[in-house]
This record gives sequence, C-alpha cells and structure tokens, in this order.
Amino acid sequence: MEELDYLADERKTAQFDVESMKIVWAGSQHVFDVSDRISRLVASDPAFRKDNRTMLSRKELFKNTLRKAAHAWKRIIELRLSEEEASKLRFYVDEPAFTDLHWGMFVPAIKGQGTKEQQEKWLPLAYKMQIIGCYAQTELGHGSNVQGLETTATFDPESDEFVINSPTLTSSKWWPGGLGKVSTHAVVYARLLTDGQDHGVHGFIVQLRSLDDHLPLPGITIGDIGMKFGNGAYNTMDNGVLQFDHVRIPRSQMLMRVSQVTREGKYLQSDVPRQLVYGTMVYVRQTIVADASCALSRAVCIAMRYSAVRRQFGSQNGGPETQVIDYKTQQSRLFPLLATAYAYRFVGEWLKWLYTDVTERLQANDFSTLPEAHACTAGLKSLTTSTTADAIEECRKLCGGHGYLCSSGLPELFAVYVPACTYEGDNTVLLLQVARFLMKTVSQLGSGKQPVGTTAYMGRVEHLMQCRCDVQRAEDWLKPSVVLEAFEARAARMSVACAQNISKMPNPEAGFAELSPDLVEAAVAHCQLIVVSKFIEKLQQDIPGKGVKMQLQVLCSIYALSLLHKHQGDFLSTGSITPKQASLANDQLRSLYAQARPNAIALVDSFNYTDHFLGSVLGRYDGNVYPKLYEEAWKDPLNDSVVPDGYHEYIRPLLKQQLRTARL
Amino acid sequence: MEELDYLADERKTAQFDVESMKIVWAGSQHVFDVSDRISRLVASDPAFRKDNRTMLSRKELFKNTLRKAAHAWKRIIELRLSEEEASKLRFYVDEPAFTDLHWGMFVPAIKGQGTKEQQEKWLPLAYKMQIIGCYAQTELGHGSNVQGLETTATFDPESDEFVINSPTLTSSKWWPGGLGKVSTHAVVYARLLTDGQDHGVHGFIVQLRSLDDHLPLPGITIGDIGMKFGNGAYNTMDNGVLQFDHVRIPRSQMLMRVSQVTREGKYLQSDVPRQLVYGTMVYVRQTIVADASCALSRAVCIAMRYSAVRRQFGSQNGGPETQVIDYKTQQSRLFPLLATAYAYRFVGEWLKWLYTDVTERLQANDFSTLPEAHACTAGLKSLTTSTTADAIEECRKLCGGHGYLCSSGLPELFAVYVPACTYEGDNTVLLLQVARFLMKTVSQLGSGKQPVGTTAYMGRVEHLMQCRCDVQRAEDWLKPSVVLEAFEARAARMSVACAQNISKMPNPEAGFAELSPDLVEAAVAHCQLIVVSKFIEKLQQDIPGKGVKMQLQVLCSIYALSLLHKHQGDFLSTGSITPKQASLANDQLRSLYAQARPNAIALVDSFNYTDHFLGSVLGRYDGNVYPKLYEEAWKDPLNDSVVPDGYHEYIRPLLKQQLRTARL
Repeated sequence: MEELDYLADERKTAQFDVESMKIVWAGSQHVFDVSDRISRLVASDPAFRKDNRTMLSRKELFKNTLRKAAHAWKRIIELRLSEEEASKLRFYVDEPAFTDLHWGMFVPAIKGQGTKEQQEKWLPLAYKMQIIGCYAQTELGHGSNVQGLETTATFDPESDEFVINSPTLTSSKWWPGGLGKVSTHAVVYARLLTDGQDHGVHGFIVQLRSLDDHLPLPGITIGDIGMKFGNGAYNTMDNGVLQFDHVRIPRSQMLMRVSQVTREGKYLQSDVPRQLVYGTMVYVRQTIVADASCALSRAVCIAMRYSAVRRQFGSQNGGPETQVIDYKTQQSRLFPLLATAYAYRFVGEWLKWLYTDVTERLQANDFSTLPEAHACTAGLKSLTTSTTADAIEECRKLCGGHGYLCSSGLPELFAVYVPACTYEGDNTVLLLQVARFLMKTVSQLGSGKQPVGTTAYMGRVEHLMQCRCDVQRAEDWLKPSVVLEAFEARAARMSVACAQNISKMPNPEAGFAELSPDLVEAAVAHCQLIVVSKFIEKLQQDIPGKGVKMQLQVLCSIYALSLLHKHQGDFLSTGSITPKQASLANDQLRSLYAQARPNAIALVDSFNYTDHFLGSVLGRYDGNVYPKLYEEAWKDPLNDSVVPDGYHEYIRPLLKQQLRTARL
Repeated sequence: MEELDYLADERKTAQFDVESMKIVWAGSQHVFDVSDRISRLVASDPAFRKDNRTMLSRKELFKNTLRKAAHAWKRIIELRLSEEEASKLRFYVDEPAFTDLHWGMFVPAIKGQGTKEQQEKWLPLAYKMQIIGCYAQTELGHGSNVQGLETTATFDPESDEFVINSPTLTSSKWWPGGLGKVSTHAVVYARLLTDGQDHGVHGFIVQLRSLDDHLPLPGITIGDIGMKFGNGAYNTMDNGVLQFDHVRIPRSQMLMRVSQVTREGKYLQSDVPRQLVYGTMVYVRQTIVADASCALSRAVCIAMRYSAVRRQFGSQNGGPETQVIDYKTQQSRLFPLLATAYAYRFVGEWLKWLYTDVTERLQANDFSTLPEAHACTAGLKSLTTSTTADAIEECRKLCGGHGYLCSSGLPELFAVYVPACTYEGDNTVLLLQVARFLMKTVSQLGSGKQPVGTTAYMGRVEHLMQCRCDVQRAEDWLKPSVVLEAFEARAARMSVACAQNISKMPNPEAGFAELSPDLVEAAVAHCQLIVVSKFIEKLQQDIPGKGVKMQLQVLCSIYALSLLHKHQGDFLSTGSITPKQASLANDQLRSLYAQARPNAIALVDSFNYTDHFLGSVLGRYDGNVYPKLYEEAWKDPLNDSVVPDGYHEYIRPLLKQQLRTARL
C-alpha cells in the first residue's frame, strides 16, 4: 500500500540531495547514524508516547515523567548504550526530568570541582544512579549574582564538620530542578565561613533525603515550587525549594579541587587554576547553543510544513486557494528563521571546537584566549536563546489560529524553551559581560595588544572605521567578503562609539551603567557578526552532496541580509552602508526567497525529525493535517460526555429561570 | 495596625496626583467610579477567586467557569446592574467564558444583521439568557478568508427552509467559543444557495442543542477542540467543532437586514447599505484596542512593582543590592512599555469617538470616511495586539526566573492574550489591508481628492518628501511638532517609495504581492504615527490634577522617541532624520528615563488594579513578594505528600538496583 504524502509534490521540487544535507545538519555521518537510530528507537516505543502530555494534571504528569525516566534507564542498561547514546536517548524522550540535572549538572560539578578522591567516591554512585543529585545554586532572593547568595557553610573545627544553614527566607534555595521531589543529594552553593571569615561561595555535597524511605533528613525542608508556564512543559520537572536548619556535613564534602579547608579550619587555595570553571561554562553554553538550533529548527519545520498544507485566499475560478507558503509576507517571516536554524547549527558546531581548544590550552596553562572565549560563549548563549524564544512564538503565529492548539506542539515548545533566556545567565546580564569585554578590547587597541579569536577584526579598526561598502547592484550582496565587512564595520563602529561616549562621562563605571542600553546593542552586533562569519567559514569547507553547498549559500545570504534589514538602523547610523545599499540588500533578499521556495520543505526534512519528536499535528511529515487535528480534538477530557459536567448545576438553571427582576 | 507597604518609599517620590491620573486613565470620573466599584465587588467575592486556576484539570477548570458565570449572572440580577456595569463585572471576573461570545458576538450579530422582527423575537430570549448563543464563522480549513467558507445553506422552496450542511471535513466549524459544550444557538455563517446559485456567505440563526436536555439536535455533531496554549487561560472556554448533516431551519432564521430570500426563493438586497457591517467592525476593533492597553498595563504593573522590590548586584560594603528598576537596561526595556500602555489607552479612547462619528455619518448616509476609518481601525488592531503580546512576554522576562512561575500571573496573561493577534483578522492580513488603502491614497494624491482623517498628512506629501528635521540639540526632540513631522515624513516616504516600486513592476497586483513585506512596514509606520499623534492631541486637552500633564508629556516623549530608536532604520533610510539626530533622540530618551524613575510606581498604581485582578504574587500592591511566593509554592498538589506518588514504582527501584551490566 502506498503511503499517503500530501507534501510529495513539495519534495519533488528540491534541488539538492536531502540525505547529504541530513549529515551536514548532524555534523558527521557518525552523529547522524547514532541520532537516527536512537530517535527511531524512542519514537517506536509506546512507553515514550507524549501526545497526551498536555492533558495530564500536575501529579499525573510528574508520575508519568518518573515512569519514563525509569523506563529510559532500563532501556539504556538493556541495550548497553554508550554515554553518548544514553544522552541522545534522554534527548529524544523530550521531556524535562530530574535526570537532566543529575547528568547535566550534578555529575559535571563533581567532575569539575571535586578532588580525585571525591570523584572516586561519588561518581560511581552517581553513574549507577544509586544516588540522584541536583544542583542547588539559586535562591529565592538571588539569581544572577552568585556572589550574593546567603546560604552559609560554617566550619566547626570541633566536629570537623560544616554547618549548612539558611539564615533568611530569601536564602531558601529556589528553582533547582530535580530537587523538589526526587534528588537524594545536591551540590549546594553556600558562603564558606571559617573562624568568622567569609571566603565567598563554594560548593558542598549534601545528602538531602534518606536512601531508605526518601524522607528529607533532619533539619531539611524541601518542596516543589509550583506550576510553571505552559501545559506539560517544565511541569514535568520538580523545581524545588530547600531550607537548611543547621545541617551538618563532614568536611570531606566540600568540593575541594580549587580551594580547601584543612582539619584545623585553615582556608587554602590549591595550585589548580581558578580559570578551570570557565572550561565548564564554555561546555554548558555550547550545549545551550546546540539546543537553540534544535528548538528553532523544530518550530520552523512545523510552520514550514503547515504553510505548505494551509491554503488561504487567491482562489481563481473556484480552484484551490493559494498555499500560504507562497505569500511573500509568510516567506519574509519564515525563511529567515529557517536560515537562522542552520546558522545556529554551524556556530554551535564551531563552539564544540572552541571547547576542545580551550580545554587543551587550559591543560597547557595557556589562559590567553579564555576571556575572549568566555565573552564569545556568553554572547552566543544570549543571542541564540533570545532569538529562538521569539522565533518559536513567531512560528506559532505563522500557523494562524491552529498554532494556538496544544496539538500543534508549538505552545509547549515555546513554554519549555523560554527559560533558556534566563537560566545559565540572564541574557541581558550576559550581553553586558560581552560589552565589558568589547570596551576593554577597544581600550587596548592602541597598546599593541592584538585582539584574538572572534574579536580579531577589531585589530583592523582603523580600516573598519572608514571603509565604504562598495555594493552597487543587488547581486553584490551575495559576496561573502562584502557582507562580512559590512557586519564588521557595524560592530566595530558601534563598540568604538560606545567607548567614546563612555570616555565623555565623569567616570567609566557610571558611564558604562548610563550607556548600558547602547552597550547591549553593540554586544548584539558583535555576536551577530560571529554567527555570520562562522556560517561563511562553513561554506569554505568541503561540503559533499549534490546541490547542498548552493542551498547553504542561499541560506547564509538570507541569514545575513535579513539581519541587515532588521537592524538597518545600526548599519545606517554608523554609515557602514548607504540607504541605497540597504534597499539593494532588500531587493536581493526577495530574489533569495524565490530561490529558497522550491527547497523549503526539503530543507526542513533535512533536520530529520520523527513525528514523535516534533509532536505536532501541523508539522506531520505526510502533511495530513486536518483529519488528525479533528481526531486529536475528540481526545480532550471535556469530550468524555456530550453534556458537560456542571450542566445541571449551572447551565440549566440559567436557561430555565424567569428573570423578571432584571434591569437588562 | 499599620498596613505593610514595601513600596511606600517608592510612592512617596511621585511628583503628581495619582487620584487625578486614575481618572485620566479611566477616561472620565463616571467610568472611574463604575470601574472602581465593580472591580472591588468582584475582588471581595470569594466565589470569584482565581488563584487556584492554573492547578485545575481541564474538566475542573471548565466546571469552575460555569460556576463563576452562573454566579456572575446571579449577582448581576440581584444587584440590578446596568448593561455597562454587568459588562464591567464580567470583565473583572477575568476568565474567558461562553458569556463573552453570547454578549460580545451573538447579541451584536442579531442586532446588526437581523431585521426588526428578528430582533424582537431573539433579543429578549438572549437578554434573559433563556438561550445562549455563539458565533460560528471560522472553519477547520478557513479562517481569514471568510468568502472561502464551505458550509452551505441551500434554500428548499418546497418546505420554505434552509438546509445547513457541512460538505467536507474542512468545512467543519472550528474555534467558535462557547460552542463546544454550552451554546444552545449559534449565528452560523454559510454560503447561501438558491436555485443552484451561490450568493456568498450569509448569517443564519441555528438552534444547536435541545433546551430540555442539552443534547445536540439531530444532524448536528458538536465537540470541544481540545487543549490550548497555557495553564488556565483559554482552557476555560469551550472552543468547539460543529458539523451539520443537512440540518433544516425555517427561512425566517436567515439574518435578513441587508439581503433577503423571499418565499419563492428569490434573492434580494435591501436598501440598507452593506457598509453597515463596517460600523460593527469599528466597534469590535475599538474594544480590542482598549483590551490591549488593559493587558499591557497589567503586565507593566507587575514588572514595574517587582523591579522595585527585586535587588541584584551592586551591594556596597555589605549593604543592600541595587533595585533592578534602577538599571538603565531595565528602564530602557520597561519604561517604553509603560508609555505604550498609556499611548494605547488614549488611542483607544479616540477610537470610541471615531465609532460614534462613523455611526452618525452612516445614519446620515455619509460613507465618505468609512474606508479611512476601516483602514485605521484594522491597523490599530494589528499594531496594538502584536505589540502587547510581545510586551507581556518582555515583562515576564524582566521578572527574571520568577516570571516563569504561574504565580507571577504573567504566563497566563500571555497565553490568554496572544490569540488577539489572530482573531478578528490576522495581524499581517490586516496590515496589508492598511497598505492597500495607503497605496490607493497615494495614487489619488494628484487627483485633487484630499485624504481625510488619519491620512490627512498625506495631503502635505510634497512638503513631507523634502522637509528636513531641524533638531540640533537633544531637547529639540521634546517639541511635539518636531516629533510629529518626523513620524509623518517617515510614514509618507515609506508609502511613496512602495508606490513607486510597485509602479516599476509589470502589473500592480503582482507588484503589491511581491513587495508585501515592505508594504507591511509602511503600514506599521502609518499606524505608529496615528498613536503618536493621538497622544499629542491628548496633551492639548485640559488635563486637571497636579503634575499629571507633565507626566503624560514625559510618557508621550518616551513613547515616540523609543519607537524612533527602535525603527531608526526607517527614519534614516528615508532621510527623515540624520544619524546625528537619531543619536540626540537617544540622549534625550536617557534623560526622560531619569525623569520617569521617581514616578514609576505611581504611574502603574494609576491603573487602579486590585490584587485580585492582577493575579500576581510579583505585582502585589504592597510589594510583599517573597513570603507570598513561598506560601503559594506549598499549595501545589505535588506538595500534598512529602514522598511523591511514583516513588515506590519508579525511584526506589532505581536507587536500589545493582547495575553490574551497565557500560556506563
């Protein structure tokens, strides 16, 4: 029997080899193979079905997540999956769970901050899940400012213990995932106090619950912090609140790789460089950027397929209406997001390389590239997560009314994604860090110190301050060197303008604070330049597969020119391009949309997502949208009965009463 | 006992009379009095509590809404409320319900499209709620394009009936609120067929359910379309699906004010002008703009108060950290939204006047201003709803992590608000209507026909195409005439550029389609000009109350200059201002933020929202945020037991198993 495919005609028009593009998207044949195998494994296992998720109550939802996590672990063991495969499996289960924090934060914290002995003691327990850990950093009154945490860990030399305490309500740990109901242990961040002296915030391994009956240990109060944004979404996670009433832990449970407290209560720094933490930060942020490209591509895939199925207006002589994907307004909103998904994929891939590079340098005690790597990852985390959150919502709107239904998958994708703008560094705070680094870079330009890595272009600042864009025809905007120079000029000029304006202020700190909105804009310009330049670098690599490279060139141009259009205020106010050139970029963009159109569906097919993973009736591979929307509707609990519960109490009396007294 | 007020110091710094501002915000002393009384009545009635809403399952939630609707009706009768007061009461109950459609769509449709006899028959039943009605227009496959609806109403001259039928799956009515479980009747839109001829879409009153047992009548299939975006939110509403299998209704149930079908089956147009429908449209859109200012001001109120409570970074010598409201990045994101809330309030007020004006003209058979009024309301609906949806999410992000909790109120406010971008005209489709009107206006400029109303500035197009902004110092941007001319020049130049580019295309229709993304931008520029100009007009009125006018002047400047900054690409590319002038606008904006800062809390207090209506722990009037967040958390059902349901099945086995076979 032939399979139904309402998008078959769309697939026929593709001018490139989709299988090759899948490998480009995955990063390598190996990653493609693992990913493809594991995603199909999850999709075909009924234990992992997720289409009923938005209808469950909080308790049902949470229990369901516990069930899935246990089942995932069982499959990981049975199939003898490697660490990489196990992590892919959890990824494709696609439901926030305590295991994310256990594997993603608790284990890495011990690895990164624990001594060799501590690692030998705790990691085997964690690897076998004989303990379950979480990461207890943020507090009710303290988020971004880690140094402002209030929880204390006071060394008691008599008993050789730390006393962990929550002195105020605002010092309650608040938000840690996996804490509320599941974790047996936590890495707790607290101010270290020895002999009345405050040594700042350090990490401690603290057991929270009994391994026998799961009850909180004495002196420990724990609970869930309540419902969060969205149906399903992060409500599968037990984000928790935690208070300590003078809880004692052995001295050996302070994470002591970087600094130690001796038996006598002396505070020592080890010779392990403190900069090591930056390595972890680069790693975590690299994952966040990869997740951004994933979330964005899912939303784009759903909106693109539905835009090809949906028809509206433009019927001629009673024929079918126009596919909404053929409207230029739809293309001008959706195609840039498609291009952005690819752009973020490639910058994420490059960040993986950066992480390896940073790690190697750290091992060789070379800290020279660290500040640049730190600023760059902070900026990319901020840019990609903010853009992705907005883009998911834009994709939802592009699906019209039906995007508002949970069965479209987009509301949950949005709700589950948006916290990425806040966690691991609030996006505005991060951009200010980038800006600070940029200001420092500008201030050192005269000193002969050459800017490195992603700020290398600043070394050509004299040229960039006065260069003129030489675009004369729309096609000139297809030249990578032209695009790159325009983005470099814009970023450099915005940074230099900020530096000059700060220098006019009474003092640099007050100036930085006063001009921070402008600094944020300069930081964004810098980060967008990084993404554009990494996309261009990608195109210089050898890319196999018929027509693949050409499609990527189109996407790269769409990404860069749509950004240029969106931010033309920056480009024009800095004189990096002229109004005429801005208008030519817009003309070129229109013809790029026309080029992308026949490939649009194949370009989202290349993400290689299963219908299970997409979780969207609108984004189905086969485009069979309407019958499935109809089918989904009837599953709602409200449809269990024809006459709703409450009719006899509340509707019937309304209809039957005589309201002679009403003024209406 | 003194009341706790953590924001008392903030309130002391206000430089204006808050009570007067409350009246300005309300529109008049009368509206303020009604609004204040009814909102307090709702807030103090425990039957209307809503703080548990996000924790209810779909069925519980829906039943709860039925209960509230019945209670609201009971109170309306008991208190003998006027129509205005009753509508305010429903508004402050703040929960989407079937009554919204009954009063907001069903009743107005009969009023607007029914004959005198039809009104006499149906309205008394509807007014007493002896029948409950909804508005069944959109279909599974058809939204914006009303003329594309597939449902048919075929006249049968033998029986003098219409046969209502759903010929396809995509013709199923889909989305109507109140349809799924409650309505007994609907105004159904269907293609009228008489004697094999298609007369396009008309409205019909159709009974859906038995008034005895509430079961759907023969030939009618009805259900709920399932879960929608968000916790609580629109899941209180029974948006429904409806199919007709040759359902017969009397001929008298076609709404026949504008066109009729005679006993013989002849189709006639009455002499009532078709343009009458525009009057209703202006009315509905005016309500939507008012709702936008309400939703936006709620979000701003929450974010503003929390920003004054929340502290982060900047502690000096162990003192308290800095209030986040004092960061310029926070101000530059939040203060423009505060200004926008006021701006939309005033443009909404003006739209009320416009509706009266249009109605009077219609009665006098003067249709001259209709196209302009139609374009203007379409554009303002689009601009205000899109901006508000984004702004609510921005306010949520401005509350950091805690904004992600349902107890912040912001997730639900967002989820409940976003459909406004799609219903009553998809926002992009509406902007294209505005653009079409603008292109027509430009094309007629040479003909001597003077543009009217909000397009009157186009009459000065020659001046606007070549005028130069004469701002030389930052303070020059405080002059209303300067700001207005810059906005007029930008809007006029963008429209003219579009018209010129279209004229270069082979044919105007194809040109319009090809350039539609640019046309959308031109339409936005036009609409923003309207809002700016109405704010400026408001300032020319007599505004009583100490310092009130000055605060409004500051807000008006913030609104205009923050827009100018955000869209500086438009202003620069059209040469309406120079880069230097753009930079001066930015300087002026910074000093305006500093002026607004001491008044920030009083400016949101002026919205006069009760804590019940705000529904936000973060936005509490007294600023007592942290203890209440903590208290709310414990109410989550997951906290019913210390050890979660599922521990014995799924967590304990995990912790206790020996995993000798694992590769990990």
